[in-house]
Amino acid sequence: MLNLSNEFIEKLQEQIQAGKDQEILSVIGDLHPADIAEVFDELRGEETAFVYKLLNKELAADVLVELEEDVREHLLASLTSREIATEVIDRIDSDDAADMIAELSNEKIEEIISHIDDQEQASDLIDLLNYEEGTAGSLMAKELVKVNQNWTVTQAIREMRRQAEDLENVYTIYVVDDQDKLLGKLSLKTLLFSASTTRTIIKDLYNPKELEKVLAEDDSEKVIHVMDKYDLVALPVTNDGGQLLGRITIDDAVDVLREEADKDYQMASGISEDVESDDSIYTLTRARLPWLLIGLAGGIAGAYVIGAFDIENNPRMALFIPLIAAMGGNVGVQSAAIVVQGLANSSIRPDQVAGRLVKELGVGLLNGIICGAIILMASIVLNFGMAISLTVSISLLTVITFAALFGTFVPLVLNKYKIDPALATGPFITTANDIFGLIIYFVTGNLIASMF
Amino acid sequence: MLNLSNEFIEKLQEQIQAGKDQEILSVIGDLHPADIAEVFDELRGEETAFVYKLLNKELAADVLVELEEDVREHLLASLTSREIATEVIDRIDSDDAADMIAELSNEKIEEIISHIDDQEQASDLIDLLNYEEGTAGSLMAKELVKVNQNWTVTQAIREMRRQAEDLENVYTIYVVDDQDKLLGKLSLKTLLFSASTTRTIIKDLYNPKELEKVLAEDDSEKVIHVMDKYDLVALPVTNDGGQLLGRITIDDAVDVLREEADKDYQMASGISEDVESDDSIYTLTRARLPWLLIGLAGGIAGAYVIGAFDIENNPRMALFIPLIAAMGGNVGVQSAAIVVQGLANSSIRPDQVAGRLVKELGVGLLNGIICGAIILMASIVLNFGMAISLTVSISLLTVITFAALFGTFVPLVLNKYKIDPALATGPFITTANDIFGLIIYFVTGNLIASMF
Repeated sequence: MLNLSNEFIEKLQEQIQAGKDQEILSVIGDLHPADIAEVFDELRGEETAFVYKLLNKELAADVLVELEEDVREHLLASLTSREIATEVIDRIDSDDAADMIAELSNEKIEEIISHIDDQEQASDLIDLLNYEEGTAGSLMAKELVKVNQNWTVTQAIREMRRQAEDLENVYTIYVVDDQDKLLGKLSLKTLLFSASTTRTIIKDLYNPKELEKVLAEDDSEKVIHVMDKYDLVALPVTNDGGQLLGRITIDDAVDVLREEADKDYQMASGISEDVESDDSIYTLTRARLPWLLIGLAGGIAGAYVIGAFDIENNPRMALFIPLIAAMGGNVGVQSAAIVVQGLANSSIRPDQVAGRLVKELGVGLLNGIICGAIILMASIVLNFGMAISLTVSISLLTVITFAALFGTFVPLVLNKYKIDPALATGPFITTANDIFGLIIYFVTGNLIASMF
Repeated sequence: MLNLSNEFIEKLQEQIQAGKDQEILSVIGDLHPADIAEVFDELRGEETAFVYKLLNKELAADVLVELEEDVREHLLASLTSREIATEVIDRIDSDDAADMIAELSNEKIEEIISHIDDQEQASDLIDLLNYEEGTAGSLMAKELVKVNQNWTVTQAIREMRRQAEDLENVYTIYVVDDQDKLLGKLSLKTLLFSASTTRTIIKDLYNPKELEKVLAEDDSEKVIHVMDKYDLVALPVTNDGGQLLGRITIDDAVDVLREEADKDYQMASGISEDVESDDSIYTLTRARLPWLLIGLAGGIAGAYVIGAFDIENNPRMALFIPLIAAMGGNVGVQSAAIVVQGLANSSIRPDQVAGRLVKELGVGLLNGIICGAIILMASIVLNFGMAISLTVSISLLTVITFAALFGTFVPLVLNKYKIDPALATGPFITTANDIFGLIIYFVTGNLIASMF
């Protein structure tokens, strides 16, 4: 495994400057494509292009697959459509090829496809490009090993040898009938250990009960759920008629899992686009501005709430504004986060909504009573005065309970209407709870002031 | 794939009540262990125990592996140590066995191990129990297929058949020397296609350059990073001397990845323990209370800040307290989240700290200028008055810039001292930024008031 350092990159840049091809190749040429991609991410555009041309074609294609999108875009722009078709697409898996060219213009895509000689390969690629992002179809590769149920082990092994030539990893062998309908799967292990009884028919080797599969139009969350639950390293994809279309491998499912987790995390942190720390200042600012603007609007609304409640005659009420606002937002985010996670890992079922709300009422009340009691004692001991101490503790109990219910309710409703529930952990809940909290606080304050 | 519904569970519960063993088995007996575990999670303790006893031993053991910890604990308590040793441990993978009994008391563990007949199995289990949680050793299983470099293909296949008998999935065959030192790996595919040239020596079949491995004491984050980067489905684990100790499979790495993501997400949402939506009200409250208590303390500190700045003579300053507090907290969390993610996926290297801070200064200033300009215009148009409009916009620019730098700095420092940087996305940053924000706001307010 490569440990990248600034020194490594600087030395490489010197060698590129000096045009020392052989030295560069001796450093880079034996690395894993994923390591070379990591090096490329650190180089400047023209340096990347220089090193890329030195690599042998097979390795160069594998490196392209591993690159960050922006670096790859730059390199692909330096290749002709014919080069992309014959030197890249032809050397990589169909799913990687589809992902790669999907980033290009429609015109360029057509040009590239017209340069692919193998008609089956071209039509596979067109198929894959047509699946919508976020579906099982968009994750699958066409490359797989399949055997007919009526073949003997010997026939199967001979056929597989042909099919598996281009395949780096064979995890599972799929068993199909004459119409290409998926019937089951067979492990390489079973086949290997049957290699001595070569006249056995495939039909007698596989267990038709053990077969998890998804449809091409199923969404990627289902793919992850099935692969995770049943510990699969490959998952076959079929059409409505049950015909085998392709397979999804675990590495691609893990990438989706990671992207989903990153997205939820970013939403919970108020970041609206998928950004990385090495993106530009402009991109990073743009990703963060939407939440800030909603926060600004909420802040102005808050100013009106405070203004409406005659703060000038009761300025001591100002002291606990930050406390009330912070607690409402916090509790709302906590509640929403638990629902979002529960929906993501399927531990909350849609028919359990009422139960969730009752439980959350309990959690909200318990937290509210504890926090309310603490703040009551603290503010009396700290001599803030009885009226304001009572106001803060009663409104805090109310705010926490309300925020807990609201934070639970909103993501459940979003989910019901097929909107990403993670949205609820972002600006919406926090800002709404800020404002509701202030209203509760000042209404309580007025009530209590009128009693004293 | 099973789609659990309330009706399914209710019908099953009726059958359990009526003691209809055969009907229950016909519904449950053919399901995947992971599905049965999902059903068990929905049943009451005594119902689970009843159905468990009906299952055949092999299936029952697999179901135990898949269960949630609390359900499993209940079932294990109903089994004797001898039963656990001979009917469960003996039928499952060593890593699952170690995870399962690690949850029990030391006394019970010793009893169970004393009932394991196979001495090698017992010592493997003791080995695995000794690895600290969070290390590669704690994730690995002892079951694997290895061949000696000097064997012929025929010998290797014969040996493998013996080794792989208990193994559900064989992903990779490891090549070792006479001292059990790991030399390389071989795919089943290569071996299968060499089966006709049976006198080939293993040494001539594998590529010694292609071998990623970890040490038993490496931490689990490295395991995930290596498996993800190189798209591996199994990763061998060695000791310092390079001897093969076990292998980690992708399903276990994915579990760790998911746990890490969940933990980071919960921290960012202010939840301090790993909780799930179906935990008890008490557990859920306990997990959420720490952040709320820190929030309370911050709120009281905020009251002192506001009190110190003579709010009684300038009550209009109260209006924008929620805005300033919310924006400081939001920006801090955004900045910290980007650093935490960057560190998690290794896109931020420790030697890039200065660069990060400079970039964040840019992002903070840009967001600050935009938000400051908007609030300046808005509050003038909305007639809040010049003094307060200037105060809010200038302090907002300052607060956003400061919060961006502070939010970036804290997780980087935590990481440097080997503390989980995700802590920074929780209460600490938000509360600190609330207080700093208020101080900046009131100092600015006093300065500007003295000028008008």
